[in-house]
Amino acid sequence: MIEHRKLRVALLGAGSVGSQVANLLLTHREELAERSGAELELAGIAVRDVDAPRDVELPRELLTTDAESLIVGSDIVIELMGGIEPARSYVLAALTSGADVVTGNKALLATHGAEIFDAADQVGASVSYEAAVAAAIPIIRPLKDSLAGDRIQRIFGIVNGSTNFILDKMDREGLSAQEAQQLATDLGYLEADPTLDLEGYDAAQKAAILASLAFHTKISMDDVHREGISNVTAEMIEGARKAGSVVKLLAICERLEEDGEESISVRVYPALIGRDHPLASVHGGNNAVFVEAAAAGPLMFYGAGAGGVQTASAVLGDVVSAARRHIAGGVGVGESPRMSLPTSPIGRILTRYQVRLEVADEPGVLATIAGLFADGGVSVATVDQTQGDEGQAMLVIGTHRAREQALSDIVARLAASDAVERVASVLRMEGE
Amino acid sequence: MIEHRKLRVALLGAGSVGSQVANLLLTHREELAERSGAELELAGIAVRDVDAPRDVELPRELLTTDAESLIVGSDIVIELMGGIEPARSYVLAALTSGADVVTGNKALLATHGAEIFDAADQVGASVSYEAAVAAAIPIIRPLKDSLAGDRIQRIFGIVNGSTNFILDKMDREGLSAQEAQQLATDLGYLEADPTLDLEGYDAAQKAAILASLAFHTKISMDDVHREGISNVTAEMIEGARKAGSVVKLLAICERLEEDGEESISVRVYPALIGRDHPLASVHGGNNAVFVEAAAAGPLMFYGAGAGGVQTASAVLGDVVSAARRHIAGGVGVGESPRMSLPTSPIGRILTRYQVRLEVADEPGVLATIAGLFADGGVSVATVDQTQGDEGQAMLVIGTHRAREQALSDIVARLAASDAVERVASVLRMEGE
Repeated sequence: MIEHRKLRVALLGAGSVGSQVANLLLTHREELAERSGAELELAGIAVRDVDAPRDVELPRELLTTDAESLIVGSDIVIELMGGIEPARSYVLAALTSGADVVTGNKALLATHGAEIFDAADQVGASVSYEAAVAAAIPIIRPLKDSLAGDRIQRIFGIVNGSTNFILDKMDREGLSAQEAQQLATDLGYLEADPTLDLEGYDAAQKAAILASLAFHTKISMDDVHREGISNVTAEMIEGARKAGSVVKLLAICERLEEDGEESISVRVYPALIGRDHPLASVHGGNNAVFVEAAAAGPLMFYGAGAGGVQTASAVLGDVVSAARRHIAGGVGVGESPRMSLPTSPIGRILTRYQVRLEVADEPGVLATIAGLFADGGVSVATVDQTQGDEGQAMLVIGTHRAREQALSDIVARLAASDAVERVASVLRMEGE
Repeated sequence: MIEHRKLRVALLGAGSVGSQVANLLLTHREELAERSGAELELAGIAVRDVDAPRDVELPRELLTTDAESLIVGSDIVIELMGGIEPARSYVLAALTSGADVVTGNKALLATHGAEIFDAADQVGASVSYEAAVAAAIPIIRPLKDSLAGDRIQRIFGIVNGSTNFILDKMDREGLSAQEAQQLATDLGYLEADPTLDLEGYDAAQKAAILASLAFHTKISMDDVHREGISNVTAEMIEGARKAGSVVKLLAICERLEEDGEESISVRVYPALIGRDHPLASVHGGNNAVFVEAAAAGPLMFYGAGAGGVQTASAVLGDVVSAARRHIAGGVGVGESPRMSLPTSPIGRILTRYQVRLEVADEPGVLATIAGLFADGGVSVATVDQTQGDEGQAMLVIGTHRAREQALSDIVARLAASDAVERVASVLRMEGE
């Protein structure tokens, strides 16, 4: 075997991903050395409690509660603790000491990304975070490197596996929202506190990271319009099915241009997708991301969106790259200079809508409602009226592309109108 | 504007990809400088004939027929001439002079890859070739970097857009092979000499490149089992449709393990894919590649498989990465050490088969044929017998997974049997 230079690797965190990373580092030593040109020596694993149960058994002597000491003198620090503090302080300490950092911490990057990239640039260290978005699916590196000479127009996809699992179960097995959520909890798709997933925070963090990278601009969580799936009912899923569509929680990052002014829209919401769209067949906990670039055209990346060992694959890819950089010499390639493009308010986006209304089954009602759309300047594309169970009529209106603000003004007037008994749902229609 | 260091870029070739690369380098100077940290100065474009018509108009003063002089003193050399010579000599000259090379030349890499990577490693220069496989779809970088810490088991996909266009037209519009081929020629999907595409050479070159990278071993064109689509008839496509399948030209790179011995199988052939498989909905000239890794699980990459501007996007991504490396300092990261895993002969692969036979409609024929399969040790999964137009019967037999050698022995015996009038087709069934 070739003599390889030794690199000291510190691992912070031994949860479902961290324990798999440790296991792969220990069991694939030789292969990793061949790939990276360096012997990756796992110096220690910082944990809160050395006696806590782990997914994978780890050598007791590597476990420590003293993360600070472990970081000192390390060449590569892998941060898989999650949360903001103490992860942020440890990452900054690692970078300041000149170590390369590999992290899967989306919350940290979505809130303190700029601070962390600046710290890395100052010492010529690198921060890699392929594991932070869409687990093992290579998406960060394609955006950062492969498409570096292109102009990204739009990113569009399913980046949260838990909510996709729930929506998929509701669609394909007719479960209620509550049943699907219970199943997701039982199978470990949802945490004890499911708010991060269900309310779209997790997807919004990923969207902020993707948008920052794709548009070379500073996007944080506050810039992301976020709606979760807690209002999505079995009735809406059923209505979508009848219309040949499926409801998916989408993350959309878009470059807008109006009157020569450029802006960025980053948003997460449940939306309708036609059944023949590739995203409609993303089932279970999988993720899929479309990237549309000016020269490359549309590209799609698909794979598992979560899982300890899958995410560990992404972490190790970053570790090998960081090790190669150490061996090759030279400074780390920082993030591209960050512009500050303005973010567009949700009211300015253009998309299509499906509005479902419960209306009185009386003469003139359709005319009144059509009039409200016309007055509001939104063009109606499709109308479908069916009889409800209790004598009322259900009216499903699909619009042409319209501005969100115009549509919500109309919805407010519909809700106030005597012709409408109930606005059952308003969903955006994406993917065309 | 920030002062950027200047890097001298030489472009060899101004065909459909080269002219787009030149155009993007000239028109996106500022954005490329921001991304790469270097001003990319296009020093010249080497062409065979400065007066030849181009897809994009290029500044006359940049065109030269003297590639050798252009290469001297360049930091980055982009080779988009195609063919083996003089491309090979120019690439070696560029590397020897310390320049980084970006190439889209799959024929060159599939035949002289090892020589070129060795030359690069000796001087610490880099060779990038994202454009050589699947145009703008990032596949090289994910294999080389993102999955560097994982173990790739299998690559499986559609990597030739022209043949996919033809097969797709036959399937979806019922064209004959000849009609579809004519249409592909008219629309520019096929070259004047279509053999490279139709006979699977292009796909085999890409398969050799992908397998070399994925399995860190030396695979050249000679190691690839290759069958093109020239034997695929409208009748076969029709038969596939009836069986709920579609015919696709697949490239498959697979790690095999038997009795503790590892080997690699790399093969290109038309095969049946079930209509519900994601590859079945890859239409027109698009490409899609599945990568299955031990930890990451299955990943899919999808996008345009050809096109001047699409491929130019991949070239520019590589150029920006090479420029970043120049700015950061340090040596280029070479290809991983190349092992020499043996390649497995086609007879040893395991897959499922569909055999279509024209048989005499007589008592005992089915028993005879079933007996031949049983004697050969191949288990029959499905049998479908229909009446032909001229009194004969058409028998379609689907097998369970079997070894190719066993199957071809049976096919030879079927062809020689009195019970069989004609072996209409034998197709492998993939994707399960």
